[in-house]
Amino acid sequence: MANQNQDAVVLVSGGVDSTVLLHHVVRLGHAPVHALSFHYGQRHVRELDCARWQAAAVGVREHRLIDISFLGEILQGGSALIAGGAAVPQLKELSAEELRQPPTYVPNRNMMLLSMAAAYAEAQGIFDVFYGAQAQDEYGYWDCTAEFLQRLNAVLALNRKQPVQIHAPFITWPKSETVRLGIELNVDFRHTWSCYRGDAYACGACPTCVERLNAFKAAGTEDPLEYAE
Amino acid sequence: MANQNQDAVVLVSGGVDSTVLLHHVVRLGHAPVHALSFHYGQRHVRELDCARWQAAAVGVREHRLIDISFLGEILQGGSALIAGGAAVPQLKELSAEELRQPPTYVPNRNMMLLSMAAAYAEAQGIFDVFYGAQAQDEYGYWDCTAEFLQRLNAVLALNRKQPVQIHAPFITWPKSETVRLGIELNVDFRHTWSCYRGDAYACGACPTCVERLNAFKAAGTEDPLEYAE
Repeated sequence: MANQNQDAVVLVSGGVDSTVLLHHVVRLGHAPVHALSFHYGQRHVRELDCARWQAAAVGVREHRLIDISFLGEILQGGSALIAGGAAVPQLKELSAEELRQPPTYVPNRNMMLLSMAAAYAEAQGIFDVFYGAQAQDEYGYWDCTAEFLQRLNAVLALNRKQPVQIHAPFITWPKSETVRLGIELNVDFRHTWSCYRGDAYACGACPTCVERLNAFKAAGTEDPLEYAE
Repeated sequence: MANQNQDAVVLVSGGVDSTVLLHHVVRLGHAPVHALSFHYGQRHVRELDCARWQAAAVGVREHRLIDISFLGEILQGGSALIAGGAAVPQLKELSAEELRQPPTYVPNRNMMLLSMAAAYAEAQGIFDVFYGAQAQDEYGYWDCTAEFLQRLNAVLALNRKQPVQIHAPFITWPKSETVRLGIELNVDFRHTWSCYRGDAYACGACPTCVERLNAFKAAGTEDPLEYAE
């Protein structure tokens, strides 16, 4: 487990999991906390707005936004593999039907993002990086497993001066548990965003909306987010 | 060892090691070969010109150039750790004296670059990635060791559909051995670039120039590159 009372980096997307994680890490006593978000040319910036709001809410020392739209350049030509990949521009070219079908997979995405997060942490002299990977993501995603994380940390552990460690405390949790923890931590879920669609209100119908609504129901509460009806 | 008669990705910087590696991989029978270079706002593009020349010389299927100048954004604030780091803009701010002192280290650089190379390979349906890491780089560089490579491959091996493997066949070689192999493979070393300085001719005095000249001497031959005198 990470040492408390130490700086920490938290990857914050603006969704439910990473937001609860951010509050959780602050509650654990890490200070100061740095939030890190990846921007990849999203169709809407609702998620990033939520990430910013939550980062301000917990009083992070810094909220760094990394532009990773260059990923489209790397993955260009691999569109068959990138069906629905949220981190690549090709997303726009997919039909609504295809967009509704997670799992969405981007080649080696998590190693790329986590290696950048570890670099950022190391450059800042920080040892602990937190990210909100979760069990539901495991189907089909080899790079969302506890085994993946363990092996990635085994690489980073070779660093002689500053071995950064990646923590994913929710990795084996059902989403409802995360919601429950968030409620305990007084997370304002109105400022989180999950919907795939870029509309003013969350649609309540796409797979992520449905998953989110089910998690709140399983946690015995109601999602305070406004949904289109 | 990599399967021959298969596509391969080779990281080509335009230096001696990666150039010999490119010719070596082609000679091994890999086909088609894809060259991958990283552009990070270098002061001069001599290296990239050399990479392009060599990629054309062996007839690669594609030479992809990835702009990683975003690294400066990630590593900003970590300048103490980035002394001489060739992949960050801060390089320019260092004195000539500092520039002369390798090892230059950039936080977690190799994991970032190799994870992008693996993503590119996977998107292209390619299983083998070659890069020219070498023993000389080992001092101080935890991410230039055989152990690092082995553990990184252990992560990639978890990929259920397409486990990409990173190969660094020269990792335990002295540079003179690489030069010797290059001569055997008829590599035109006039189109390789090592000098740190951005002048028209290689200076022959900076650490990389000296290392290069010594390697040619140890290989029992003369460096055909024109040096300033």
